[in-house]
Amino acid sequence: MRSVTYKDAGVDIDAGARAVALMRQAVEATHGPEVLAGLGAFGGLFDAARMKTMEHPVLVASTDGVGTKTRIAADMGRLDTIGEDLVAHCVNDVIAQGARPLFMLDYVATSDLDPERVAAIVNGVARACARVGCALIGGETAEMPGVYAPGQFDLVGTLVGVVERGAIIDGARIQAGDLAIGLASSGLHTNGFTLARHLIRNMDLHAPFDALYAKALGDNPPDQGEHARAPLPDQRPHDEAKGGPSLGELLLAPHRCYAADVDRMRAAGIDLRGLIHVTGGGLIENPPRILRGSLSMRLHRRRWPTPPIFRWLQRLGEIEEAEMARTFNLGLGMIALVPPAQAADAIRSATCPAWVVGEIVDDGLAGVDIVT
Amino acid sequence: MRSVTYKDAGVDIDAGARAVALMRQAVEATHGPEVLAGLGAFGGLFDAARMKTMEHPVLVASTDGVGTKTRIAADMGRLDTIGEDLVAHCVNDVIAQGARPLFMLDYVATSDLDPERVAAIVNGVARACARVGCALIGGETAEMPGVYAPGQFDLVGTLVGVVERGAIIDGARIQAGDLAIGLASSGLHTNGFTLARHLIRNMDLHAPFDALYAKALGDNPPDQGEHARAPLPDQRPHDEAKGGPSLGELLLAPHRCYAADVDRMRAAGIDLRGLIHVTGGGLIENPPRILRGSLSMRLHRRRWPTPPIFRWLQRLGEIEEAEMARTFNLGLGMIALVPPAQAADAIRSATCPAWVVGEIVDDGLAGVDIVT
Repeated sequence: MRSVTYKDAGVDIDAGARAVALMRQAVEATHGPEVLAGLGAFGGLFDAARMKTMEHPVLVASTDGVGTKTRIAADMGRLDTIGEDLVAHCVNDVIAQGARPLFMLDYVATSDLDPERVAAIVNGVARACARVGCALIGGETAEMPGVYAPGQFDLVGTLVGVVERGAIIDGARIQAGDLAIGLASSGLHTNGFTLARHLIRNMDLHAPFDALYAKALGDNPPDQGEHARAPLPDQRPHDEAKGGPSLGELLLAPHRCYAADVDRMRAAGIDLRGLIHVTGGGLIENPPRILRGSLSMRLHRRRWPTPPIFRWLQRLGEIEEAEMARTFNLGLGMIALVPPAQAADAIRSATCPAWVVGEIVDDGLAGVDIVT
Repeated sequence: MRSVTYKDAGVDIDAGARAVALMRQAVEATHGPEVLAGLGAFGGLFDAARMKTMEHPVLVASTDGVGTKTRIAADMGRLDTIGEDLVAHCVNDVIAQGARPLFMLDYVATSDLDPERVAAIVNGVARACARVGCALIGGETAEMPGVYAPGQFDLVGTLVGVVERGAIIDGARIQAGDLAIGLASSGLHTNGFTLARHLIRNMDLHAPFDALYAKALGDNPPDQGEHARAPLPDQRPHDEAKGGPSLGELLLAPHRCYAADVDRMRAAGIDLRGLIHVTGGGLIENPPRILRGSLSMRLHRRRWPTPPIFRWLQRLGEIEEAEMARTFNLGLGMIALVPPAQAADAIRSATCPAWVVGEIVDDGLAGVDIVT
C-alpha cells in the first residue's frame, strides 16, 4: 500500500506557500510603520499608539464578502478586480459610520488552491488597500475540496477603522427635511449576483452587452425619466471592435469605494447626518439601519439614471419594482443625508455623479418610500 | 411570464432576517458596555477609550477558518460546537502573541440558508466568545448557491485583541536551552480534516471509534512510549451502551482554547518567551514562525501521548511520520517556550495535561527536529 499524503487528499501546503510568495510584495507595500508584524505571524500587529492622542477612540469593524460575484469572476477567469470589490465593500461600511480605515485582513477559500489565482485575488485586495491607506496585516488561504464547488472560491474581508466617539455617524441627528444625496454606483457592486446569475444562466458572459440590451429593450426602452440619455456610469475602457463591454465585464465592474467622496464632503464642511451604504437588501433594507423613530426616506425614482444593466435584468425576469429595490442598488451605491442648504455643496464635493434623490419625511412609517 | 424574485434564484432575504432573530440573544449576551453598536449597524462599534490608559497599545488581529471540519459537522448534523472551534482558533492565535481578546466578527456562508442551522453555528460562536470575555460585535451571513457544494458551509472569524508593545510575545528572547512545554490538544482541532476525510471517505461517522481502532490496530498497537496507557484527552461524555464516542464525535471534539492556561502561566510569573499555536502545517511549519536565527526546536516524540485518533489515521493511510507531523498537531495544540527553571511551574499552571516535550537547540538549521 502506497502511503497517503495531504496532497493526495487535495491539500497542497507547498501551493499555499507559493501563493504567499506571489502576494508578499503587494501585501507588504500596504505596510506603513504601524505594522509591526504581518505575513507569517500568528496574527497581524498594528501599532495603536496614535489612538492615545485621540479624545475618545472608538474602533469600527466590518466583515463582508463579495457574494456570488466570485462565481462570475471565476467563470470569466478575471480575478484581478474582485479584491477591489471586497475592500470597497468593507471601506464603505466603515466610513458610513464616520471612521477612517486602519487595517484589513482577508480570507480566500477555494476548492483547489492554484497559487497564481489566489495571488491574483489577494494582490487585488492589497492594491485597493494601498489606495485607501489601509494596511493589509493578515489573512488566511484555505483549500477546501468538498465544501466549495469545483473551481469556485469565496473571498471575505474584515476591516478595522477608528473614529472619535463624538464624530460617529449613526443617524441620530437626521431630521425631517434633510435631503438624500445619491452617489452613483458602478453597477451591481457586490449584491444581487445570485439573482442576476439566475436570470443569465444560459447566456454567454462574453456577449456584447449593448446587443443584449437592444434585443431585450431596443424596441421598447423603459422610461428612464429625465436621465434617459445618461451614459453608463464607470464603464471600463473597452474594445470598440466588440461594440462595448461584454455582459461579464459589466457585471464585474468593481464596487465603488466612496472614501474620497466622504473625505471631500467632510473637508467642505458638509454636516453628514447619515451615510447609507447600499448593500445586501438594496434601497429598501439599508436606510432603516440608521433611521430613528418615525422618520422615513422618500426616494424619487426618476431623479437619478438607472444603469441599463438593472433595466435589462428587470426585463429578463419581469421583476417587480419592489423586488428590484430590495435586491439591487439600482444605481446608488451610497446615500448621504445632509441639511437642505448643503445639498449643492455635497454634490459638488463628490468625485462621482451625484443627485438629490429624495428627502427625509416624518410619516410614522420608519421605512423607505419609493415614488415612481 | 411569471416575475422572478431573489428567492426564486436561491437567496431568501427573510431567512437571513430570521437567522438574525434566532442569534440575537446569544450575540448580545457577549456585549459589555464597550459595545456601542452591533447587530444591524454597518459595522460593529467598540469603545477603545481604555486603550488610552495603556503605555503603548498594539492591536493584534487574526482571521481564521475551521477548514473542512465544517463538512464533518454538516454531515453529522452537529452544528452547535463548530463555533467553539472558530473562536478557539482565533483566540489561540492572538494570545500566542501576548494579547488579550477584545472583539470578534464572524462570517457564515452556505449553499442554502436555513435560519436554524445558521443560528446554531453563530450561537456556538457567541457562547465561546462569552467564555473568553470577547464581544461578538459583527458578522455576515451569505447564501451562495453555486459557490458552495449543496448543504455545505464555511465559517470564518476575525478576532482583534490588544497588547502592550513591551509585552508582545514574538520569540525574540528565545534562547538555546529553553524548554518546550506541550499543552494537550483535544484532537485534530481544525487542521488536517481534508486528509482525515480522504482516509475515512466510505466509513460511517456514527461507528464507535474504539471498535474501528481495535480493528485497525488492536493486534499490533503502535509503540506509544512512556504514555501508552494515557487516557484519550478531553473526550466528551459518551453513551456507555455505544461503547465510547463515535468516529464523528471524536473528529468534532472542539479546538481547545488555551486562554486560561496562558493567563495562569502569566499569573504564576512564567517567562513566556514563545508561544506556538499548532495549526495548519502542524508541528513542522508553525515553530519557525517565531524561531530566530540559527535556533531550532527539538521535539521528543515519546514524551507525550499521541491520541489514538492520530495513530489510527496514520495506519489507515500508511502515512509517513514527517507527513503526519506537518499535517496534524499529533496531540499538542500549543507549545510554550520557557526557561528550564520554570518548566515545572508552567506545567502546574496549565489547566490541561502538559509535558516537557522538547528544547531549543542552536543547530544552525532554524527548523524542527523530531526525535522518535
